[in-house]
Amino acid sequence: MDKNDIKILKTQSPKAKPAPGSELGFGRIFTDHMFLMDYTEGTGWHDPRIVPYQPLSLEPSAMVFHYGQAAFEGLKAYRGKGGETLLFRPRMNFDRQNSSNARLCMPELDVDFALEALKELLRVEQGWIPSDAGTSLYIRPFVIATDPFIGVRPSDTYLFIIVLSPVGAYYPEGLAPVKINVETEYVRAVRGGLGFTKAAANYAASLKSQSKAKDMGYTQVLWLDAIDRKFIEEVGTMNVFFKIAGSIVTPSLTGSVLPGVTRDSTIRLLRHFGYNIEERPISIDEVVSAYKTGALEEAFGTGTAAVISPIGVLAVENEVMELSGGKIGELSQKLYDSITGIQLGEREDIFGWVERV
Amino acid sequence: MDKNDIKILKTQSPKAKPAPGSELGFGRIFTDHMFLMDYTEGTGWHDPRIVPYQPLSLEPSAMVFHYGQAAFEGLKAYRGKGGETLLFRPRMNFDRQNSSNARLCMPELDVDFALEALKELLRVEQGWIPSDAGTSLYIRPFVIATDPFIGVRPSDTYLFIIVLSPVGAYYPEGLAPVKINVETEYVRAVRGGLGFTKAAANYAASLKSQSKAKDMGYTQVLWLDAIDRKFIEEVGTMNVFFKIAGSIVTPSLTGSVLPGVTRDSTIRLLRHFGYNIEERPISIDEVVSAYKTGALEEAFGTGTAAVISPIGVLAVENEVMELSGGKIGELSQKLYDSITGIQLGEREDIFGWVERV
Repeated sequence: MDKNDIKILKTQSPKAKPAPGSELGFGRIFTDHMFLMDYTEGTGWHDPRIVPYQPLSLEPSAMVFHYGQAAFEGLKAYRGKGGETLLFRPRMNFDRQNSSNARLCMPELDVDFALEALKELLRVEQGWIPSDAGTSLYIRPFVIATDPFIGVRPSDTYLFIIVLSPVGAYYPEGLAPVKINVETEYVRAVRGGLGFTKAAANYAASLKSQSKAKDMGYTQVLWLDAIDRKFIEEVGTMNVFFKIAGSIVTPSLTGSVLPGVTRDSTIRLLRHFGYNIEERPISIDEVVSAYKTGALEEAFGTGTAAVISPIGVLAVENEVMELSGGKIGELSQKLYDSITGIQLGEREDIFGWVERV
Repeated sequence: MDKNDIKILKTQSPKAKPAPGSELGFGRIFTDHMFLMDYTEGTGWHDPRIVPYQPLSLEPSAMVFHYGQAAFEGLKAYRGKGGETLLFRPRMNFDRQNSSNARLCMPELDVDFALEALKELLRVEQGWIPSDAGTSLYIRPFVIATDPFIGVRPSDTYLFIIVLSPVGAYYPEGLAPVKINVETEYVRAVRGGLGFTKAAANYAASLKSQSKAKDMGYTQVLWLDAIDRKFIEEVGTMNVFFKIAGSIVTPSLTGSVLPGVTRDSTIRLLRHFGYNIEERPISIDEVVSAYKTGALEEAFGTGTAAVISPIGVLAVENEVMELSGGKIGELSQKLYDSITGIQLGEREDIFGWVERV
């Protein structure tokens, strides 16, 4: 299949686009069209199409409702200064979708074709890419199992869908320090499970802990490993970095941690800046000790939605640690400016990360 | 709410029911109607209704597709000798649905009302309950998150649905010994996660291992714990029991194991039969040792779908153990006959488990 195989059916009733300067929020507004493609065992992926954004009609017995066979990706399209549409390392997202699909016994996508399909959709929806500072067009590709069958086995049919949503900053307050609670009761994932994927299942498992943190006055949780309950895994839905005595430490990818695109970009940028990066197991005890000796200089989360999320407060049971004086750390700000600058085409794309549509 | 609040809209085009003696399979045929009820934050559960079985129309952004906020139950209705409709311990299923809902930040159901709703649906669909030996009407209640929102938080809206499916035996071959592969690479759940619930997520995590076992010529997998990777948790989608030197051992409910209705019923029946029951951690090493000394007399899975599933072969890497001479064990047969006899109203309901509709 190539992009000429994509049928395009345009809407007869386009929605009003948000006015420049209006509050977009995150994930609430969707554009006029979406991309759909079917999979049938024996036939493979077929019928790629761009159609008006509309509800999905699925049997109540569709497997996604019962057995959670679903995985997604998240990336963004940016409006460049000259009006051009920019993507940031989109191939990594489709590669990761395939890694999620493989773990969940779902068929893999042709990455080149998926990327072509996305670009075609973006061409149709280019008027929806906002240009205010901090805004972008959030892209949500996802695959769901659709067999009308009640019984535990992989589905024989799937839908691959891409929807688009113009968004503001993920945190309404913009780049601002977040308060994080270290979760000691619940776990997100374990080695041998789904932690390295963007399976829907991982997010279902995270909700309770997130609600608990919110009730306690925190924004997000820091996840510890499920086995020793002391090694740091992720923060909320982001990867996490610590600056300790000048060095940067981030948990290694041991199977239960998501290999984030922003994580990888952060590591490469930090190396480029001349930092020493340690990808290794790091325990919460080590972080607390570093805090106590004054060696813990900064901590931040990395992810597509928020890009960089500086950690202002980290609470481990009764130990409440204020980091970077509760302000945005210097390195967090530098990384945020660098990554968003490259994404928007305003800074030199030294790694060749940006793809024009 | 009570059952008078349930609006009933009957289908104008009823489907042909499977003829007596025809092959029903499992989870492929659905009845003419289903039960639906909405939840809206602030309002609670509302609009209970029985409507023609039909596709669900959901926004592509509906949270269930992205974040796996979904959990289900499974139980059966049986056709008694006198034509009456019988349920087996249905309250346990709705209680467990609530336990799943709580862990997934979904609203709880009024168990009395849910049970009334199920009975009302069964009254409408009573012609669909098959009466051939081994058949029943499988009942699938489930809750899914429906907010049209892309961002990780609990949904504010949900659907509670009950669909019905006339079924034959879960294993087409009927009560027959199954071949089980002990999974040593993948895990199903871990303490602090979702293992004790019927979250859709747990089943997503299980598919890869199940496919691997199938490719190796096995029917199901035996799950080991995620931490020590040696304590037995479940078998496939069932709880598991071992008869060792006359005593019955089953893994204790430590948080990562499903508290099965058939598990509980089996334990009570075995006590009634005079067996010594040990609910405790049991390692795969202990099972292998017991096999080698000849003390391992029988092993079987328990679950709503298959009731009792005798284990004929258990393979731990290169160690392939044949149990009960590869035949149906005596105790497995006795339990199967006792439980199905009670379910069908053919044996004395000594524990008061059967509920007439």
